Amino acid sequence: MDNIKSYVQQHKDRFINELIELLKIPSVSADTAYCQDVIDTAAAVKISLEKAGCDTVEICETAGYPIVYGEKIIDPSLPTVLVYGHYDVQPPDPIELWTSPPFEPIIKKTEIHPDGAIFARGACDDKGQMYMHVKAFEYMIQSNTLPCNVKFMIEGEEEVGSVNLKIFVENNVEKLKNDVILISDTGMISNQQPSITTGLRGLSYVEVEVTGPNRDLHSGLYGGAVANPINILAKMIASLHDENNQITIPGFYDNVEELSLEERAEMAKAPFNLNNYKKALDLNDVYGESGYVTNERNSIRPTLDVNGIWGGYTGEGAKTVIASKAFAKISMRLVPNQEWEHITELFTNHFTSIAPAGVTVKVKPHHGGQGYVTPIDSIGYKAANMAYTETFGVPAIPVRSGGSIPIVALFEKELKSKTILMGFGLDSDAIHSPNEHFGIFNYLKGIETIPLFYKYFVELSK
Amino acid sequence: MDNIKSYVQQHKDRFINELIELLKIPSVSADTAYCQDVIDTAAAVKISLEKAGCDTVEICETAGYPIVYGEKIIDPSLPTVLVYGHYDVQPPDPIELWTSPPFEPIIKKTEIHPDGAIFARGACDDKGQMYMHVKAFEYMIQSNTLPCNVKFMIEGEEEVGSVNLKIFVENNVEKLKNDVILISDTGMISNQQPSITTGLRGLSYVEVEVTGPNRDLHSGLYGGAVANPINILAKMIASLHDENNQITIPGFYDNVEELSLEERAEMAKAPFNLNNYKKALDLNDVYGESGYVTNERNSIRPTLDVNGIWGGYTGEGAKTVIASKAFAKISMRLVPNQEWEHITELFTNHFTSIAPAGVTVKVKPHHGGQGYVTPIDSIGYKAANMAYTETFGVPAIPVRSGGSIPIVALFEKELKSKTILMGFGLDSDAIHSPNEHFGIFNYLKGIETIPLFYKYFVELSK
Repeated sequence: MDNIKSYVQQHKDRFINELIELLKIPSVSADTAYCQDVIDTAAAVKISLEKAGCDTVEICETAGYPIVYGEKIIDPSLPTVLVYGHYDVQPPDPIELWTSPPFEPIIKKTEIHPDGAIFARGACDDKGQMYMHVKAFEYMIQSNTLPCNVKFMIEGEEEVGSVNLKIFVENNVEKLKNDVILISDTGMISNQQPSITTGLRGLSYVEVEVTGPNRDLHSGLYGGAVANPINILAKMIASLHDENNQITIPGFYDNVEELSLEERAEMAKAPFNLNNYKKALDLNDVYGESGYVTNERNSIRPTLDVNGIWGGYTGEGAKTVIASKAFAKISMRLVPNQEWEHITELFTNHFTSIAPAGVTVKVKPHHGGQGYVTPIDSIGYKAANMAYTETFGVPAIPVRSGGSIPIVALFEKELKSKTILMGFGLDSDAIHSPNEHFGIFNYLKGIETIPLFYKYFVELSK
Repeated sequence: MDNIKSYVQQHKDRFINELIELLKIPSVSADTAYCQDVIDTAAAVKISLEKAGCDTVEICETAGYPIVYGEKIIDPSLPTVLVYGHYDVQPPDPIELWTSPPFEPIIKKTEIHPDGAIFARGACDDKGQMYMHVKAFEYMIQSNTLPCNVKFMIEGEEEVGSVNLKIFVENNVEKLKNDVILISDTGMISNQQPSITTGLRGLSYVEVEVTGPNRDLHSGLYGGAVANPINILAKMIASLHDENNQITIPGFYDNVEELSLEERAEMAKAPFNLNNYKKALDLNDVYGESGYVTNERNSIRPTLDVNGIWGGYTGEGAKTVIASKAFAKISMRLVPNQEWEHITELFTNHFTSIAPAGVTVKVKPHHGGQGYVTPIDSIGYKAANMAYTETFGVPAIPVRSGGSIPIVALFEKELKSKTILMGFGLDSDAIHSPNEHFGIFNYLKGIETIPLFYKYFVELSK
C-alpha cells in the first residue's frame, strides 16, 4: 500500500492546512455564544465531504445543531462502512492557561511529537480525528481503490450529550443501514504501540443547586444561625464517597460487572508506569477506590467527579457574605450494565434525600449515555488490527477506556451493528484541557491506516 | 431639644440629597477596578466635613486608601468625642439580584419603612450612618450647641480589614486622643425598640487553594484515578464541622468564654420571634451549633462559614473536566478572648494537615480582628441610652452583635478609650446583600439622637 504513503507525502501540507482552517472556527456546542460558529463549522464539513468525493451531502437540521450526512454508494451489494465523528468542541476555558490562543492553531514540536503537533481546541477531539476519515476517503476516491460503500454522519452536539443525534438515528435507521461503524474519537497507548478501545464507560451528568436563605446575608449577623448553602453543598458532596472512595449512593453498584482475576491480569499487561504517570501530572500520589489499581479505577470502575462548583463571592479580596445559593456540576462515569437513566434517578433521589433542614436542593439532569464493550473476535476488530499491524509494524492491544461516547451503545441498539474505535490520539494530547494538540505523525498515520481497514474489512466480509 | 427636630425637618431634603450624591460613587475597596471611585469618595467626605464646620480636614494618605481626618476643637479642657466611620462599601454582586442599580440610589417605601428607604450599596453600611454624624455636627455648629471637642476619622478600608487604619492609629495616638469613641456601623432591634451593641465578634478571613493535577483533565480518562481538587476541597470543608456543628480545628474553642445561664437568660429577653425570622429568610428551619439558640449562635458563639467557592467548569451546559485547582474563601467569626492571629494560625496548620496525598494545599490569610465587649455602666453607654430614650421614648436594650468591627478592639488598646456603638440600621436593611437600603426615618432619627449623646456625655463627664 505504498500509494497511500506517497499520496499522503504529496498532499500532507494541504491536509494540515485544511484541518487548521477548520480548527479556526470556535464550534463550542456547550455555550450559545458560539452558536453561529457551530453552524458555520457544519457548513465547512459539508464542503469538505463534497470535495472529497461524496455523491450527496446534506445538512440535516435538528432541534439543536445540524448533523452533516454524506454518502458514496458504489454498489448496494457491497458492505457499507458508517463513519461517525463530531465537529463540535469542548469550551476552551480556563483560557488563561493556553500558551497559544485555542482557536488560532499553531504547530509546535514536543518531546512526544518531534514532527510537531497542531495546538488548538478540537485538534484531536474530534476535528482532527474526524478529518482523517475525510482525507482517507479522498485518497480512495482519487486512487479508485474504495472497496465498499461509505456513509458519513458528523454531528455537532457530542460534547453536550448527542440528544438530537439519538432522535436522528432512531428516525433514520434505513438511511444509516451499515455493516460496521467506524469512529476515531479515542486514543492509543503510544506512537509505537497502537491500541483499539474495546470498552467505554457510560455517563450521567447532573447539575445541583442548594438554596438556603432567600438572599445573600451578612456572615457576621447570620453566620452560625442559618445553614450556609456552600458548607452544606460541600458536606453533601463529601458524603458521596466513603473512606474507601466507594460511591455511597444506594444501589449504585448493583449492576456493576466484577471482572475476573484473569481479566484483570490480562488488563495489567498493557504497558503502564505509575511513576511516569504521576510525574506527567505533577502528583505526589494517585488517589482512588481501594482495591483497584490506576488502570482499573479509570476504566472498569464507575466514578463520581465534581466538574465544577461555584457560589458566594469569588472576586478579588474578601466579602463576608453567606450566599443564598451554591451550585455544582457532577458527573458519574458508568460501566457496562449500569443503566444511565436509572443511575441519574438514584443520584437525584439520594442527593435530595440527604439535604438537611434549612436548605432546599434541586437536581437537574444534563445528559448521559450507556457504557459499551465490543468483542475482539469480530470482523471489524480483526480488520482494524490488521490495518494497525501493517502501518505500525506491531499488533494493536485491546484496551478499556474510561471515556464515554454515549452514542455507541445507541448505534448497536438501533442500527444493530458493531462499532470499531480506531483512535489515533494520545492521553498526553490534553483533550478537554488547555493546550489540546494532535500530532502531525498521528494525523497522517491515521490517514494511512484507515484505507487498510476498508480493504481488510471487505476482504474478511467475503 | 425641639430645635434639632425643626432643623432636621427644615433641611431633610438636602440631607437626603447630599447622601444620595455620596452613594452614587461606587467606593468598593475590595475591587481595584473601583480604585479611583474610592479616592473620589474620600475627597467628597473631606468637603462635607469642611462644609459642616470642621476647623481642619486632612486627607491622610496610607499604603492603601486614604483616611479622612477632621476636627473641631472648641476648648482643650472639655471632653473630646472621636467619631469613626468608613466611606468604602461592599462589592455589589450578585448584581443581577438588585431591583435597582446599586449605585443609582432610589427612594422606595417598604413595609418596615413606610416613610421610604434609600436603596443603594452603602446606604446603611456605612455611608448613611457615617453621614448622620456629619449632619448632627452641622446642626450643633449652626445652633452653636456643640458642647465639646469633636474629631472625625473616616476610613476607606473597613470592608477589607482596616490594615492601614491600624498603622495610622498606632502612629497618631496623640492626635486621636479622646474621651469616647462614637461609631454608627451596627443595627438596632426595630424602629420602635432601639438597642446598643455591647459586643462584637472577631474575624479571621482566609483563602484556600487546593491543587491536584498540573492541568485540567478529561474526567473520563482520569476520573477515579486522581484526586479531584473540588471533591477534596468539599471533603476538607465538610470535615471542619462535626455532627453537632462544632468546629473541629484543634484548640479553636480553647479561649472561648462560656456565658453563665444568668447571662444567657438576660440575652433571651431581647424580643425575637423564630417564626418571623424563618419567614423573612424563606427558611424551613434554622441550622447551627447544638445546645444554643439562634440569638446565641450568631453572637456569643464562634462560627466558620465559606463565603465563596469556585473551581472547574462553571459556564453554561456541561464540561467533563477534572479541574487542576479549586478555591474557597473562608471566614471565622470569633468571640472575645479568641486571638484572631492565633486562630488563623490554627486554621492554617489544621487545614494543610488534613490534605490527602494527591493534592497540595495553600492557605492565604486575608485579614482579621479581635472581638470586643463594652461595659454598660460607662458614662458613654449611659449617655447613649439617655439619648435614645429621649428620641424613641423607650430605653435602649444592650445586645451582642454577631458582626465584627475589628478596629474597635484596637482603639481600646491604642487609644485607651471605650467605643459606643450607636447603630440606627435594621437587620432587614440587607447590608452586604443585594438591595441594601437605609430608612429615611432611621437616617433622620440618627441625626436627631446624636446631638443628645454629646449633651449627656458632657453633662455626665462633669
